[in-house]
Amino acid sequence: MPSALKRLLVGTPLSTAQAKHERLNKVFALAIFSSDCMSSVAYATEEILLVLVLGGTFALQYSPPIGIAIGVLVAIVASSYWQTIHAYPSGGGAYIVAKDNLGTMPGLVAGAALLVDYVLTVSVSTASGVAAITSAFPALFPYRVLICVSCVLAVMLANLRGLRETGRTFAVPTYGFILSLAILIGGGFYHLATHGAPPYPEAVPVQEAFGLFMVLRAFSGGCAALTGIEAVANGVQAFKPPEARNASVTLAWMAFILGSSFMAVTFLAHFYHIVPSPEETVISMLAREVFGRGLMYYAVQVFTAVILLLAVTTSFAGFPMLASLMAKDGFLPRQFSNLGDRLVFSNGILILAAVSSALLIVFGGSTHALIPLYAIGVFTAFTLSQTGMVKHWWREHGPRWQTHALINAVGAVATLLVVLVISVTKFTHGAWIVIIVTPLMIMGFIAIHRHYGSLRGQLSLRGFVPPKIGRHPVVVLVSGLHRGVVTALTYARAISPNVTAISVDLDPTTTARLQQQWPEWAPDVPLVILDSPYRSVMQPVLHYIDQMEKQRDGDYMTIILPEFLPAKWWHHLLHNQTALLIKGALLFRRGKVAISIPYHLDQ
Amino acid sequence: MPSALKRLLVGTPLSTAQAKHERLNKVFALAIFSSDCMSSVAYATEEILLVLVLGGTFALQYSPPIGIAIGVLVAIVASSYWQTIHAYPSGGGAYIVAKDNLGTMPGLVAGAALLVDYVLTVSVSTASGVAAITSAFPALFPYRVLICVSCVLAVMLANLRGLRETGRTFAVPTYGFILSLAILIGGGFYHLATHGAPPYPEAVPVQEAFGLFMVLRAFSGGCAALTGIEAVANGVQAFKPPEARNASVTLAWMAFILGSSFMAVTFLAHFYHIVPSPEETVISMLAREVFGRGLMYYAVQVFTAVILLLAVTTSFAGFPMLASLMAKDGFLPRQFSNLGDRLVFSNGILILAAVSSALLIVFGGSTHALIPLYAIGVFTAFTLSQTGMVKHWWREHGPRWQTHALINAVGAVATLLVVLVISVTKFTHGAWIVIIVTPLMIMGFIAIHRHYGSLRGQLSLRGFVPPKIGRHPVVVLVSGLHRGVVTALTYARAISPNVTAISVDLDPTTTARLQQQWPEWAPDVPLVILDSPYRSVMQPVLHYIDQMEKQRDGDYMTIILPEFLPAKWWHHLLHNQTALLIKGALLFRRGKVAISIPYHLDQ
Repeated sequence: MPSALKRLLVGTPLSTAQAKHERLNKVFALAIFSSDCMSSVAYATEEILLVLVLGGTFALQYSPPIGIAIGVLVAIVASSYWQTIHAYPSGGGAYIVAKDNLGTMPGLVAGAALLVDYVLTVSVSTASGVAAITSAFPALFPYRVLICVSCVLAVMLANLRGLRETGRTFAVPTYGFILSLAILIGGGFYHLATHGAPPYPEAVPVQEAFGLFMVLRAFSGGCAALTGIEAVANGVQAFKPPEARNASVTLAWMAFILGSSFMAVTFLAHFYHIVPSPEETVISMLAREVFGRGLMYYAVQVFTAVILLLAVTTSFAGFPMLASLMAKDGFLPRQFSNLGDRLVFSNGILILAAVSSALLIVFGGSTHALIPLYAIGVFTAFTLSQTGMVKHWWREHGPRWQTHALINAVGAVATLLVVLVISVTKFTHGAWIVIIVTPLMIMGFIAIHRHYGSLRGQLSLRGFVPPKIGRHPVVVLVSGLHRGVVTALTYARAISPNVTAISVDLDPTTTARLQQQWPEWAPDVPLVILDSPYRSVMQPVLHYIDQMEKQRDGDYMTIILPEFLPAKWWHHLLHNQTALLIKGALLFRRGKVAISIPYHLDQ
Repeated sequence: MPSALKRLLVGTPLSTAQAKHERLNKVFALAIFSSDCMSSVAYATEEILLVLVLGGTFALQYSPPIGIAIGVLVAIVASSYWQTIHAYPSGGGAYIVAKDNLGTMPGLVAGAALLVDYVLTVSVSTASGVAAITSAFPALFPYRVLICVSCVLAVMLANLRGLRETGRTFAVPTYGFILSLAILIGGGFYHLATHGAPPYPEAVPVQEAFGLFMVLRAFSGGCAALTGIEAVANGVQAFKPPEARNASVTLAWMAFILGSSFMAVTFLAHFYHIVPSPEETVISMLAREVFGRGLMYYAVQVFTAVILLLAVTTSFAGFPMLASLMAKDGFLPRQFSNLGDRLVFSNGILILAAVSSALLIVFGGSTHALIPLYAIGVFTAFTLSQTGMVKHWWREHGPRWQTHALINAVGAVATLLVVLVISVTKFTHGAWIVIIVTPLMIMGFIAIHRHYGSLRGQLSLRGFVPPKIGRHPVVVLVSGLHRGVVTALTYARAISPNVTAISVDLDPTTTARLQQQWPEWAPDVPLVILDSPYRSVMQPVLHYIDQMEKQRDGDYMTIILPEFLPAKWWHHLLHNQTALLIKGALLFRRGKVAISIPYHLDQ
């Protein structure tokens, strides 16, 4: 039954040989890797305007140059990742690039930043998308946590089914969003050209002095547009061969669509004299100006909400991939590197869904407090990755290495600036948590790595002398004489010539009967009766075993526990679970092997 | 650590030989067995008056004769149980008497009724006692469920410590209640004699026509006074020898104190012209009339609240005792008949605390809806027990058997009448639940009994041919060559000459290395490589084992799973739990023995 349910939800298993067929072509890859990135067009312009508006109408004039600066940043970061993809065709996220070129610690910092970032993307995007839905349908507000978690689980299932099917599932809404954005932009400029700009609104009062710091803050707010841009470089191996070529072309398309639509929206907002407000999003105001409250307006709104919810797909592609890389390097539990039934890293998908759902539940579906954390994580990873690339080109010393290095150096400096600006402006808004969480995660990675390292040494066969089993002592625990016990005695005699039976005296009558019947069924096995003044079975048995320890021959000793297996599950409740307790206690004693000899009941 | 905590809360274990010393003398026994019974004096008179008041001032005149009738009923039931104690000195609750004399089914009905009754007593008494507290301190009202559950757990711990210490713990409040009641009664009659009765209050309007039915309803309400009277007869074995004599003397004292104080309170309420009200209890009104709002008034109130909370002790003494009797007869899981560390039936105590706490949580600390159920249970048990006693005397045909039988017959008829009256008047108030729950419980008892019965047959050695082990096949599951695997192979060769190693091919490189290294460490053991197109370890292994099944020699086959045991608990998370899953799957296949060979890691 659970297995049938799994088949229905996740699909039939795929064989390893099918792996190549599950690879993505560029069209589906763009859909799956760009949803996070593209969704930021829905709010990045607004982030800029929300800072500038504090400086009044005058300050709002500075949005186009900031938009251009971010457009250039997109181009720089994308060029950097284009280079990374070709240098690391087997997948080169910030973790790999930083680790290879800068050393383990920077790699782990990048890894920690990205893992946290993926989890936060899932929580924050889901919460925002669901907030859009509950704003439209206030009746759903009390159920927002339930809706959030259901969305996460739905995306989780889609991802457990596998990459190709995920790409299919999400192609329609992603391209729908891009198309509706294109119509909005085209319509907007056409309207501007034919009708001219609308009149200036009322002057906005000045709340803060305008200056370089404000421009930098606005710039760093707009940098939210870049979150998710690294996804393609992490997932090169998900592409059809030739992987690097296909991935880099997809990245270029994504960067072009992202950069141009972001800049176009920023320019339109400027020409339409849009003043940001807490009640309505910039995209909504723009769509209203261009289309009026018609069908196209609602199409833009719906696709925006959907793309925000789908942005989590990128994380569901990126997190398991990164976790599997870190697991292969021994920094995360090995289970993350196991391909599941459907050729996806199922454990990573499940953990991501679990942790992000937990955050949604703990924060009651309102995760705005987490947003600063996640911008810092993204840009820290960018900086480390691009610094690593500079080092890479310098070490390789290939043709035109100076040009390559320069491109990455510009990127590294630009993104480092962003990290510094966000850290300073958002320190009290939660950025300090990063300072606590990142070192803890890195300590965890190192502890895991140390365990796997010491494991190799401890299990190494170099100089190993196999244990001596000898005339190995076997002890059979006997409660009375019945079929299960006689079966266990037969088994014990088959595996060793040195068998002893022990029985705990809980009731003198039962013990006397046992001693009397014994010679008939096991004359060759000595029967030892153990006293139990406190009516415990465990204690006398463990005491006896510890005593025998001293006189045993060989390194191992075996304890046989006859167990009968009831035919119905609830019959288990009708029997003592002493055997289980004894096995648990023996697990922590060296050189002890506990064997349950099952006797299956028919009814 | 958990063991030390247990010692602190429950005390050090007591040896079986100490059992006799843990027995109760009469003074402590009266405290422990009478708290339930005595607590009913706090509300039984009120139950009568609450019915009669519907008939107006005139009807209230009938409380003294009803009080006398119930006093007579107490005497009848107590005489009946006096006879039972001497006829069944090893403990003769309704279950035993009904089963011995009337057959298994009536015994199980009585058993079910009593078990439910004990659980309900704990829930209802705790809820009432806590309601008294939260009425006095309304700030505690939001925490009432927490307080209820804490009270249950406190009483549970006292009972896990053992009978004698429980008796000590509860002697002070029980005797305090009895003493404060005696002062109230003495003071009341003295006040009446010296000052005369207070003037008549305003006439109470008639709401229902007065008649025989109303008198019967009032009578059945007052019968709540009898709940808990059977406790002594169930617990004869808890008394110091001579058990029967001590128990019957204690019962007589209890019945005398109960009957006289109940009748006295009823008479005082009549003479003081007390009209019941929802805002104040009858005891409170009476104490106020006699003492005014002074120290004695508060003493009565406090002792009343405490005795209601302590009433649960009787159930904590009765439930485990009855459950152990039913377990010995095979109608409940055997674990209920195990004496714990402190010579009490710990499992019964734990289950009672768990179920009654669950009821308190589910009903949010307000369990009034359950009260009718529990009166029916008590009187059903009385009726069955006394009918059984009539049969007992008739069968024994001893001296004066007619007198004995007559006493019990009167009791049986009287209590049967009460059952009928409560069933009719309370049917729609929840009595119908009894009709659903009782048969379900009895079906459970019978299913358990059938399992134990069939178990004996299935495990019987009559005609049993021990299994053939022969040249028994041993399969070692190998993931790679390391110390744990080599140890497992050494063990396997020691227990059988017929060893095969199997390994699942998950990665061609690893498999090739394994095959190359193999001859060095285990040249005598054939290594079989299993394909796994779907990357599962479980499936190919189980498939191979099922295939071998067909060609094996002997009835048993052994599968050896090398396991290394990490030194720290969290290291377990870093390893696949495949061995555990395979062991789980093998548990349901006959003739398979799964052995984990532990290899302990040092760090």
